[in-house]
Amino acid sequence: MTVELISVGTEILLGNIVNTNAAWLSEQCARLGLSCYYQSVVGDNAVRLKEQIQQALNRSDIVILTGGLGPTTDDLTKETAAQLMGKGLVMDMHSLERVEAYFKARRIEMTENNKKQALCPEGAMVLDNDNGTAPGLILEENGKRMILLPGPPNELHSLFEQQVKPYLQKLSPEIFYSRTVKLCGIGESKAAAMIQDMIDAQTNPTIAPYAKTGEVHLRVTARAKDEQEGKKLVKPVIRELKKRFGEMVYTTKEERTLEEAVVKLLKKNKMSITCAESCTGGLLAGRIVNVAGASSVFQTGYVTYANQAKRRLLGVKKSTLREFGAVSTQTAKEMASGALAAAKADVAVSITGIAGPDGGTARKPVGLVYIGCSVQGHTIAQEYRFSGNREKIRDNAVSAALTLTRRCILENCSKKE
Amino acid sequence: MTVELISVGTEILLGNIVNTNAAWLSEQCARLGLSCYYQSVVGDNAVRLKEQIQQALNRSDIVILTGGLGPTTDDLTKETAAQLMGKGLVMDMHSLERVEAYFKARRIEMTENNKKQALCPEGAMVLDNDNGTAPGLILEENGKRMILLPGPPNELHSLFEQQVKPYLQKLSPEIFYSRTVKLCGIGESKAAAMIQDMIDAQTNPTIAPYAKTGEVHLRVTARAKDEQEGKKLVKPVIRELKKRFGEMVYTTKEERTLEEAVVKLLKKNKMSITCAESCTGGLLAGRIVNVAGASSVFQTGYVTYANQAKRRLLGVKKSTLREFGAVSTQTAKEMASGALAAAKADVAVSITGIAGPDGGTARKPVGLVYIGCSVQGHTIAQEYRFSGNREKIRDNAVSAALTLTRRCILENCSKKE
Repeated sequence: MTVELISVGTEILLGNIVNTNAAWLSEQCARLGLSCYYQSVVGDNAVRLKEQIQQALNRSDIVILTGGLGPTTDDLTKETAAQLMGKGLVMDMHSLERVEAYFKARRIEMTENNKKQALCPEGAMVLDNDNGTAPGLILEENGKRMILLPGPPNELHSLFEQQVKPYLQKLSPEIFYSRTVKLCGIGESKAAAMIQDMIDAQTNPTIAPYAKTGEVHLRVTARAKDEQEGKKLVKPVIRELKKRFGEMVYTTKEERTLEEAVVKLLKKNKMSITCAESCTGGLLAGRIVNVAGASSVFQTGYVTYANQAKRRLLGVKKSTLREFGAVSTQTAKEMASGALAAAKADVAVSITGIAGPDGGTARKPVGLVYIGCSVQGHTIAQEYRFSGNREKIRDNAVSAALTLTRRCILENCSKKE
Repeated sequence: MTVELISVGTEILLGNIVNTNAAWLSEQCARLGLSCYYQSVVGDNAVRLKEQIQQALNRSDIVILTGGLGPTTDDLTKETAAQLMGKGLVMDMHSLERVEAYFKARRIEMTENNKKQALCPEGAMVLDNDNGTAPGLILEENGKRMILLPGPPNELHSLFEQQVKPYLQKLSPEIFYSRTVKLCGIGESKAAAMIQDMIDAQTNPTIAPYAKTGEVHLRVTARAKDEQEGKKLVKPVIRELKKRFGEMVYTTKEERTLEEAVVKLLKKNKMSITCAESCTGGLLAGRIVNVAGASSVFQTGYVTYANQAKRRLLGVKKSTLREFGAVSTQTAKEMASGALAAAKADVAVSITGIAGPDGGTARKPVGLVYIGCSVQGHTIAQEYRFSGNREKIRDNAVSAALTLTRRCILENCSKKE
């Protein structure tokens, strides 16, 4: 079965935003075993949008449109799609209630134009949008399917995962059963090289490596008649991958993130964690706290951007800063042990580095980062050299800190994953 | 004059990579006054690539293709384009020398298939590629133009800027001049409603609203013969928008973010800022620190996720937490004033709320957030109700905190933006 993606929005054609939705949806469709031969982008223009959709309907079984469902007059996707399928728009009372409730909950008075978002093509399946006001829509007409989804990624992702994915899974005669082996502490090319023989020999299931920030995900996908058969096909491959990569495997659960794995490991060992961050300015704490239920392991975090803050909050020695500088193994270590004491935690992680664009020198270039970790008395620090812009360096530092923390806990604590 | 972009590569259709080339090229074309009505992506498939290019040639004046110029057998762009324009491929000796020199310089032995990269359609303009082996190509045939560029961004960018841009500038009689008015503290629909009359009456320049998390961007674009005329056309519209939205306008600079505006405002007033975060766990500090040069206004931040941490680090009263709870106006205020004192800062922002998915009650539902701000003695706190998943609630809280901080500084300090 073939799927085609149409992203609607003049802002994409003007290059104001990067079309990440298309990449995300393509990956989702590929996982579902749907073949995507075309992606296209068209602006907020009724005529061109109409011809684009028409062409897509002619050559593809399923057309997924994103964007143009909002309340403003240049949001045309719904109207155009309905017209093409010869449907009128009717007010969907359930959606209207949800739109009204959305504004009520925020104590914002709802402007009239928002009612437009509750207008739905006759006979369309309406998908509730928990993160926004515009509902998703599925239209079916003589074997052709159109799926209309909102443009904001967070709305698109949850809508797709909760409501569109199950719908698409039903359409395919055979299923694609996938499991992901998530690795940390290894690069993509090295990981790929370690399983080149498996990749060369693969037919069903297949293994595809994906590089993520500070991680590598190995996706094992089996084509099968049902989930049970899929599981049976995938199982031995997962076992082999676990054997080859050992402790680099932090999870084989689809939804689990590295920070979740770390929080879980801490809970298992009944330990609490604290962070002392300089160049990442709270991003590490932010990722840990983003884990639902993190409150049982995380109580306090420190953002010590200035040297003075490192001294006052963490007790980093003036002499250490003078002798070795704020970006050094020594400072990273003192930040970690200092945070451990100050927060009365069992584990402390510290990050200090040069995220750029300024502040780099020949001896300490932009991208140089030291990460410290203190677990039950043992305090270590490691040097890293990241490249890319400020944001990329910070993201890499946070992932590396989580990886190092996990390793230190595994090495020093009894309870493993 | 119209331009159409075709990105070639199965890896894009599989979602393995995000198509940043299309966004970058679109912006470049928009600045050159070229109207881009379509972007499309097609895989490494001769048949589909051919029909895609044919369609583009029929409806657009200029077709820019990226990718598929490499040495491997699945690189088909050049062959397909030449075929469509009825040209044969001939070995371009100048390009061949460059390819050979490229490998020589890197001391890599050149494999035979690399010679393929020096094959060029007869009569094509050949563009030297200083960062790679595949040259760019420009083909002209009865009023239609095809521009073939390599896929790797660094090769694409320099090739375009040095050789394609000058070529296109000669073709285009007019340019597009754009300015963006960025608003905070107002929703998209409300903002759109406030300028509906302007949007309805617009011809040149045009106004397009874009919703961002906690922000609305109004993009004003004028079609003009040169930049000077463009500026003149846009100026009165910008003035009118500033008049209508007043202090909600935090910048009219393209690249300035809300956190940058706040940092700038702090610098102007020679003030420092600190954050005390509960449910956002360091994200606010992270956004402020992400501003290059933030070190001059931000020294310390507190992540006080547990009540005990709120008491120990910020001196929030036990009785306050007992009486009103951690998620309350009173706690938000004490967190702000406490952080102000602890960090010896001039401005303190606090965030405490229920990000979910658990922890919500009838009286205090998920999405309820209190944000406190303390500026020169004045401490206020505001209640917010956000919806969506944990991540969305946290992102909204951070944006709202920046907006509230900006307002408090504007109200209490002498130096304005």
